[in-house]
Amino acid sequence: MAVNFKHDGGFFAPMRFEAQIEDCEVEGEIPADIRGTFYRSAADRRFPPLFANDTPYNSDGAIDMFRIYDGNVDFRSRYVRTARYDAERKAHKALFGLYRNPLTSDPSVRNVSHNTANTTPIVHGGRLFCMKEESPPTAVNPHTLETIGEWDFDGAMKATSFTAHPKQDPVTGEMIAFAYEAKGLCSDDLAVFIFDREGKLTKEMWFKTPIVSMMHDMVITDKHIILPTTAMVTSKERLDRGELHWAYDEDAPTYVAIIPRDGDASDIRWFKGSTDQHMVVHTTNARTEGNKIIMDAPVAGGNFHPYFPKLDGSFSDPADYVPTLRRWTFDLEADNDTWEEEILFDGIKVTTFVRMDDRYLTKPFRYSFMLMNDPSLPVAEAFADTLAVRVSNAIYRFDHDTGKIDKFYAGDSHGMSEPQFIPRSANAPEGDGYIIAAVNNFREMKSEVVIVDAMDFAAGAIARIKMPFRLHMQVHGYWASAEHLPF
Amino acid sequence: MAVNFKHDGGFFAPMRFEAQIEDCEVEGEIPADIRGTFYRSAADRRFPPLFANDTPYNSDGAIDMFRIYDGNVDFRSRYVRTARYDAERKAHKALFGLYRNPLTSDPSVRNVSHNTANTTPIVHGGRLFCMKEESPPTAVNPHTLETIGEWDFDGAMKATSFTAHPKQDPVTGEMIAFAYEAKGLCSDDLAVFIFDREGKLTKEMWFKTPIVSMMHDMVITDKHIILPTTAMVTSKERLDRGELHWAYDEDAPTYVAIIPRDGDASDIRWFKGSTDQHMVVHTTNARTEGNKIIMDAPVAGGNFHPYFPKLDGSFSDPADYVPTLRRWTFDLEADNDTWEEEILFDGIKVTTFVRMDDRYLTKPFRYSFMLMNDPSLPVAEAFADTLAVRVSNAIYRFDHDTGKIDKFYAGDSHGMSEPQFIPRSANAPEGDGYIIAAVNNFREMKSEVVIVDAMDFAAGAIARIKMPFRLHMQVHGYWASAEHLPF
Repeated sequence: MAVNFKHDGGFFAPMRFEAQIEDCEVEGEIPADIRGTFYRSAADRRFPPLFANDTPYNSDGAIDMFRIYDGNVDFRSRYVRTARYDAERKAHKALFGLYRNPLTSDPSVRNVSHNTANTTPIVHGGRLFCMKEESPPTAVNPHTLETIGEWDFDGAMKATSFTAHPKQDPVTGEMIAFAYEAKGLCSDDLAVFIFDREGKLTKEMWFKTPIVSMMHDMVITDKHIILPTTAMVTSKERLDRGELHWAYDEDAPTYVAIIPRDGDASDIRWFKGSTDQHMVVHTTNARTEGNKIIMDAPVAGGNFHPYFPKLDGSFSDPADYVPTLRRWTFDLEADNDTWEEEILFDGIKVTTFVRMDDRYLTKPFRYSFMLMNDPSLPVAEAFADTLAVRVSNAIYRFDHDTGKIDKFYAGDSHGMSEPQFIPRSANAPEGDGYIIAAVNNFREMKSEVVIVDAMDFAAGAIARIKMPFRLHMQVHGYWASAEHLPF
Repeated sequence: MAVNFKHDGGFFAPMRFEAQIEDCEVEGEIPADIRGTFYRSAADRRFPPLFANDTPYNSDGAIDMFRIYDGNVDFRSRYVRTARYDAERKAHKALFGLYRNPLTSDPSVRNVSHNTANTTPIVHGGRLFCMKEESPPTAVNPHTLETIGEWDFDGAMKATSFTAHPKQDPVTGEMIAFAYEAKGLCSDDLAVFIFDREGKLTKEMWFKTPIVSMMHDMVITDKHIILPTTAMVTSKERLDRGELHWAYDEDAPTYVAIIPRDGDASDIRWFKGSTDQHMVVHTTNARTEGNKIIMDAPVAGGNFHPYFPKLDGSFSDPADYVPTLRRWTFDLEADNDTWEEEILFDGIKVTTFVRMDDRYLTKPFRYSFMLMNDPSLPVAEAFADTLAVRVSNAIYRFDHDTGKIDKFYAGDSHGMSEPQFIPRSANAPEGDGYIIAAVNNFREMKSEVVIVDAMDFAAGAIARIKMPFRLHMQVHGYWASAEHLPF
């Protein structure tokens, strides 16, 4: 069965190959104090989808690594060999149907795991996990990228799903995660898991949700776990009708669960927000101060997923719903279930991709690094209509103390991906280090990885790792220092 | 040590990455009767050369494979992990100097094997060898392409060099090979080796050559081994002066050694040709008929290697010395040391790359498949000056019985590589089968592999394996049927 994949040839096209490079080409010099591995997850469809209206979120997961040491860089990329990959590999064609609707898959594979492992790479307890929120993590060898398999934490993790955005507490070394639809598709079961530094499950709590809704990211403080719903909803009826898992419910409230880390399931508290607070897809940081919980995150007032329709099947224009950076303050002693909202930054709309110096997770912090859509930056005429150049053309360092922004701009035909922060050393002050980010050079149709001094954006890229080909579009990344993950 | 490789970005630029694809994209349908592996050797420099005048022949060897089965294609490419690769990998930079002159290499590696294993892949006795004429073969796992190491045939092969063009007798299954400069650089020692079907050395013969000259290819009959010199010469003095190994001696005679397969070293006979018969780089076929040996090969009257100067350091124009297909007939009973020459085909100049149905090696045969420079075929205006499109734009099937030619043309921005012949079945008549060849699509800057019915060139490509990237330029290839090499 020969594959014949029609695609547009741009950066959104699948890469479809796995590669390695020993000694990447580098323009500039990589600082000697950078030693570690930059992982990237990608969604890279191997076969044409069975349904034209399927979402890229349903593409095969791939994992890339850039290993940096002594100024050298080695690269490797691999597909994650999920059960789905293996089944389609054996058939030499697509068998799996619409996103999160196994009823649309070939009957031969409806009971095979639909896990694509395509969202986030995380290193915990010496293991590399490729995460996808509707499935358990997939363990991958962090040095060879060979797939080990779905990981249930030595049989301890019983949920059928697992967030792609667990949080690692920089003080205790714990990994805190959650699962929604945790007892199967469309179930209203929510679970929270706490793993110790080595990845042993030390605590689990199970809840019921007021709404079965996409819950993509979370945030933690030293005392609390915060879990927002979005207004993306699903139902058995949708799946029976052969539809995509998600639809956008314009009228759904936004719920935020707050759970004490040292409490039990009965201590959960659900806050309820407005329809203008619908879309917390990713979070920045949070902290507990007395009876208050302060959370910063990009939030949009409506659905910016272009692939998911409204409940009535029509589509809203995602451009109308670009996130602004907001601060939500929850008062645990208040006698209502709402919260205060402050807009921290809305001069220019932020994308949903934001990262920070993870050593300051759960703590008061100053800097966040946001992927931005800055229309003031020049775009080459040939790429003026290239969405991926226009909407993610800069990284902003945002100073949460002063509101000051500093911009990094990679070029006039360049789209950027979510950055990662690399501390200069384990004990360096907050923000003292580097930003690493993949860049899509549309003029050359090749990828680059830029390294920027995080406190000197004006100096531009210190080093550019020049790839001899176009990489797949990144979803999320992870920086594992050599101290955290020796090699 | 960051790598920063300045190159022109074209097909001659190094690829610098290793890749694999499970289920390549295919346009058209691959016939179900094709089952086997198409190997390609490439010269792909990992680091900028130490000397600007070095030749591409001195680039790191890589090996590609296309495994074809049930209409599917899997691809894999790897660098050959030679001792040279390993030393430069450890240093993260180039250490090896000019082609075949270790005196120009970094002192730390002058005694390390300079083998690049970049010329020809051959499967014999279940082993895949990557060949380079100044070094022993390098064994590579034929399924994973992992390097095993230099291969001395269980200690039996003592020469320091080994041709990249051994011949496999289709009747006896033997592999016949030779080595020149066989006792070290510039030595006038010539060795001939005969291995049985399993790769066991069964016979060796040692000779002295009248001239120390490049001897790139050979040809065999059922009774004889034929070894031509070229007029590329070398000397210790050249190497001491820090020069490239080869210079072209316009005045050197052409020698051809003829050795009976069942004879001994004393049976060698040296024929001596003119300066218009200088350049037999590759051969087509030969047979012994009574006391006559009839050899067909592309032959040029002068030096077409653009990298190698004349003895005085000046360069001739390689365009003046394009091969014509010639037949040389040697009479073993003649009392002179010359031979008869007939021009079989010179309407259009042939490149030096020619292949045939290898089941007819040593036998009377009808068809050869030549990479051609056909100026009558259309070239897109944008590529009119692209040498690699102009000079290898077609494959000709040449009928040695009738002189008739049939052309395969891949497109107006396409350069072609040496083809391989795939018999339709083990017992199919001569030429009944397919041609497989890599094609460089300069418009898309991507590679394709075309499959053509060898007896119906007019129908065009039956199938095109569409690569998602530009492959390195091929040197030579090899087709191993699944019967010859099971997988």
